[in-house]
Amino acid sequence: MNAPRIFCNSLLSPELFETLRAGVSPGELVLPANPGTSVLAVPQKDPAFENIDIAFGQPDLESIYECDSLRWIHVSSAGFTRYDTPEFRQYATVKGLVVTNSSTVYAEACAQQTLAFIMAHERQLPKSLTIRAASGTPAWNGLRYACGLLQNQTVLILGYGAIAARLVEMLRPFNLRVIAMRRQPKGDEGVEMITPTDLPQYLGLADHVVNILPENHESLGFFNTERFGLMKPGAAFHNIGRGTTVDQPALYDALKSRHLSAAWLDVTNPEPLPDDHPLWTLDNCYITPHIAGGYATESNALVAHFLDNYRRFVDGTPLRDQVI
Amino acid sequence: MNAPRIFCNSLLSPELFETLRAGVSPGELVLPANPGTSVLAVPQKDPAFENIDIAFGQPDLESIYECDSLRWIHVSSAGFTRYDTPEFRQYATVKGLVVTNSSTVYAEACAQQTLAFIMAHERQLPKSLTIRAASGTPAWNGLRYACGLLQNQTVLILGYGAIAARLVEMLRPFNLRVIAMRRQPKGDEGVEMITPTDLPQYLGLADHVVNILPENHESLGFFNTERFGLMKPGAAFHNIGRGTTVDQPALYDALKSRHLSAAWLDVTNPEPLPDDHPLWTLDNCYITPHIAGGYATESNALVAHFLDNYRRFVDGTPLRDQVI
Repeated sequence: MNAPRIFCNSLLSPELFETLRAGVSPGELVLPANPGTSVLAVPQKDPAFENIDIAFGQPDLESIYECDSLRWIHVSSAGFTRYDTPEFRQYATVKGLVVTNSSTVYAEACAQQTLAFIMAHERQLPKSLTIRAASGTPAWNGLRYACGLLQNQTVLILGYGAIAARLVEMLRPFNLRVIAMRRQPKGDEGVEMITPTDLPQYLGLADHVVNILPENHESLGFFNTERFGLMKPGAAFHNIGRGTTVDQPALYDALKSRHLSAAWLDVTNPEPLPDDHPLWTLDNCYITPHIAGGYATESNALVAHFLDNYRRFVDGTPLRDQVI
Repeated sequence: MNAPRIFCNSLLSPELFETLRAGVSPGELVLPANPGTSVLAVPQKDPAFENIDIAFGQPDLESIYECDSLRWIHVSSAGFTRYDTPEFRQYATVKGLVVTNSSTVYAEACAQQTLAFIMAHERQLPKSLTIRAASGTPAWNGLRYACGLLQNQTVLILGYGAIAARLVEMLRPFNLRVIAMRRQPKGDEGVEMITPTDLPQYLGLADHVVNILPENHESLGFFNTERFGLMKPGAAFHNIGRGTTVDQPALYDALKSRHLSAAWLDVTNPEPLPDDHPLWTLDNCYITPHIAGGYATESNALVAHFLDNYRRFVDGTPLRDQVI
């Protein structure tokens, strides 16, 4: 094939752009005329997006639809909501356009964040890090006996992908039941699998419900009053997927009434929540600002992952993390 | 043997006393004339401690020395500092007195607490649960890239027993190096072992140093200026053993100067620290009030563990958790 033109609107340091430029050579790196400020911002049509073969970052749909030469999109996030529509999938199929994401880059960090949430919940860290009670006092007894052990608990994971697979491995040293939900179980997951149809009869079993659902037309507001109502009283809810998959007023009610013992959210809708949002007022709603995938070398890993896929693309071998 | 008399000054609910009473029957349960208020309080000589065969709880040394019939002490904590002296060990050897502790009861919770500390540290939970930064802002970038992954890190555990053994298992899903220190490695630990003599050359390797040393004459003030100085810059220090094994002014200096990135302490000296203690003023010193071993059913487990050992004692088979 001729040297491809690679559009990249990923936010990278000058050094990493050079790594990328060298890595795709003799392919040509095309930078946006209007660089964005955040991986989560909505990208605008960019005039530099012309005669592009490969797009790496968060390319906008209008540029994609107008670019007949485009063959492969490598999304710089794990989420790929913008492209996860029946219309886009149809377009991609017709054009032979492949979409990969960066879930491998963030899966380990997201799984570790989820384990951190689960352990912090069991060991009551937010409370125990602020209390100064003496041994034997009522406050101390209350806290000490509120601490939990993972043994014999049930963890239910919604959305089975790279993050869930790693989380399952991290939970293995504990004697607990792990159940994962996936639209179409393949049988090779190595964990008890259910489908969305099974969910109602399983929601009530779990002590920890972990929401890693991607955002799409089926998952918007998925955790609503009915599904929270089906959860076990005292269960904890964790969200490291997308904030839009939760009906937040329903979550507020489930937390306020103590039906759920706590929610641990890395994602909300919007992000961050406005300062007057009711969820901030709850003492059992713990929110981190969408940093679950973060780690010091994530940008290096992002570029290395793209370049690995780039070599596969050039060689005509299967790409990693293909989602469309 | 004749029906033994069992002195019990453990703090138990009326229901658990009945479980205990039924479990030791036809042995006779002897309750203290002056019940204490906390497992950590110093027990006083109790007039009811006469013609006792077995003591379960925290019996005082004077009662023990004056009771010729005593053959077995089952301590209701993992710590057994009161009895861990050359003098007491000598006395126990001469009298054929056996001492067991309850480390099995608390090991799982303590190991989970330690993992919670390690994960919370890596994922920056105390900071990320309070910040409300928007994606792409300097505060958000700083936090996101400060988050760490356990991969390729080194964890050094001082004091190898039931807690360390479980922690080693919990760390196995991560690709990291675990090193444990023990006075006399047995070779069956299943983890890289060092002795106190080796320690100086290993302290500088660890990203996380976990202190589970018991309190005895060798461990008082063990973590001092010199040993903190040998630790790797930016390392985290965790203490779930005994507060007295740390020179707290030296810890303060190591944290204040940011030589250590953080300390996570479940134990201090005294407990709780007075409100004007300098450690409270540091933003990188995280303190929980000696609750690492806690969980809702710990008292039930404590009695079940004693009764299991009681049957072994009656049958003449080896006791679990024998420490002297």
